[in-house]
Amino acid sequence: MRTKGEITRAKILEAARELFNTKGFSATSINDLVVATGLQKGSFYFHFSGKDAIAREVLKEATGEFMEFLGKALGGDNPGASIDNFFRCALDKHLATGFVGGCIFGNTALEMSDSDPEFAGAIDSVFDEWISRVASAVAAAQKRGQIRTDINDEALAKHIIATIEGGIMMSRLKKDERPMRECLDTLRITLDLRV
Amino acid sequence: MRTKGEITRAKILEAARELFNTKGFSATSINDLVVATGLQKGSFYFHFSGKDAIAREVLKEATGEFMEFLGKALGGDNPGASIDNFFRCALDKHLATGFVGGCIFGNTALEMSDSDPEFAGAIDSVFDEWISRVASAVAAAQKRGQIRTDINDEALAKHIIATIEGGIMMSRLKKDERPMRECLDTLRITLDLRV
Repeated sequence: MRTKGEITRAKILEAARELFNTKGFSATSINDLVVATGLQKGSFYFHFSGKDAIAREVLKEATGEFMEFLGKALGGDNPGASIDNFFRCALDKHLATGFVGGCIFGNTALEMSDSDPEFAGAIDSVFDEWISRVASAVAAAQKRGQIRTDINDEALAKHIIATIEGGIMMSRLKKDERPMRECLDTLRITLDLRV
Repeated sequence: MRTKGEITRAKILEAARELFNTKGFSATSINDLVVATGLQKGSFYFHFSGKDAIAREVLKEATGEFMEFLGKALGGDNPGASIDNFFRCALDKHLATGFVGGCIFGNTALEMSDSDPEFAGAIDSVFDEWISRVASAVAAAQKRGQIRTDINDEALAKHIIATIEGGIMMSRLKKDERPMRECLDTLRITLDLRV
């Protein structure tokens, strides 16, 4: 059973993640977190040294969950099916939230990349790991003749991730799944992806 | 010659645009603008009713400039060359700023889409117009056999814009042109773009 302190800490992180993702990191104040959680201000400073520490912990948790998601999403009967499955899981993930919040890494990438180099570096590492995992799946699919081979695995992985991030952006603006779904369908064709 | 008032107004808008683009809209306060411009607070309220009014005007100016940029960038000897030129101009635009600031529409799309529907709508209109202009160029290139024809013009246009936005995101994180450049090079191949 979790202790009262652990429950409070988890409550703070959950509220922070939602606010950071919908309002942005910089725009979220400790006061917003007080209102969202109903906790006393003292509770925040008991568990965290400040907003930055909360942000770092939110990012750490989100990174762990995302890597777990990637591991599952990139699982399939064969490499081509794994990539196709990853596309489907990525869309489902955002359909589940109605395109509210979007991708925490994409959001913070655009918000923090100029203002907070340490934070930007942490997000960049998530992108690097993401690219590396997708590139491995692409390389395996290329070996099996399930994806075009005239562009190298890493370039295709970056292209896939860029397109997904852009698709999420357009779908979030419209609160409509179609832009992201269309981007993924187009990718399947342009990658010459066979399952 | 511009009046003193016009110069002050332009100074406010310029500082606001830079701060909005690097720190984010929500995180920028009137006080930040006071510091950045060296103007008295009263000057801001003489010219604008508040931060929202400044934000709307910044977006309006940026939209006008972007449409002018698109008009020029999408100009070429033939439709295929126009699309290739647009890719080159998009990269040059961000090379010129060293990937600081990025795309104001992409940034605000991710920052405001959940918190400010009116603003999100204005940004969505920019994306729609952007898609429509790129789709026209794609359709013309398809007619000339300069781009693949097995995917419709609008779907390809959305795919192109999504990939560019994602490429900017990755290049901003690294402050390195390569991710965006690679995404554009990959697009040229996957679109089967011939100049």
